[in-house]
Amino acid sequence: MKARVTVMLKQGVLDPQGAAIGHALGTLGFEGVETVRQGKVIELELREDDPAKAEAQVTEMCEKLLANTVIESYRVELI
Amino acid sequence: MKARVTVMLKQGVLDPQGAAIGHALGTLGFEGVETVRQGKVIELELREDDPAKAEAQVTEMCEKLLANTVIESYRVELI
Repeated sequence: MKARVTVMLKQGVLDPQGAAIGHALGTLGFEGVETVRQGKVIELELREDDPAKAEAQVTEMCEKLLANTVIESYRVELI
Repeated sequence: MKARVTVMLKQGVLDPQGAAIGHALGTLGFEGVETVRQGKVIELELREDDPAKAEAQVTEMCEKLLANTVIESYRVELI
């Protein structure tokens, strides 16, 4: 079973990487870009076949390792 | 209009960050994790309202800046 975790900085947390991308797009001539936020995506291949158990396991991984829940939010999808 | 770009290393390209996450999950006691790949996600808020134009614009951004198409693949979604 495959899972995808998306980790983004929470709203209100400064995102210098996103700001740098936004600035670089501007210098390349892309107009009309209002805000840019950058995050991480982690794709996991799990041996677990039960979707509910797989999702619970990945959520625990997020809480313990994949996301810093003080400043980041995460989303788990099974794919 | 909002767009999400997901950039992943192509299959076959070594992903040391993903491997490090897989190793760390193992040391934390998570068994049953086969492979881990890490990528980037970039969320853009665009002034463009036409979905076709927005997608074309974001694809051009990927080709010029957001992805290194030699080693990375990208996916554009409008959200």
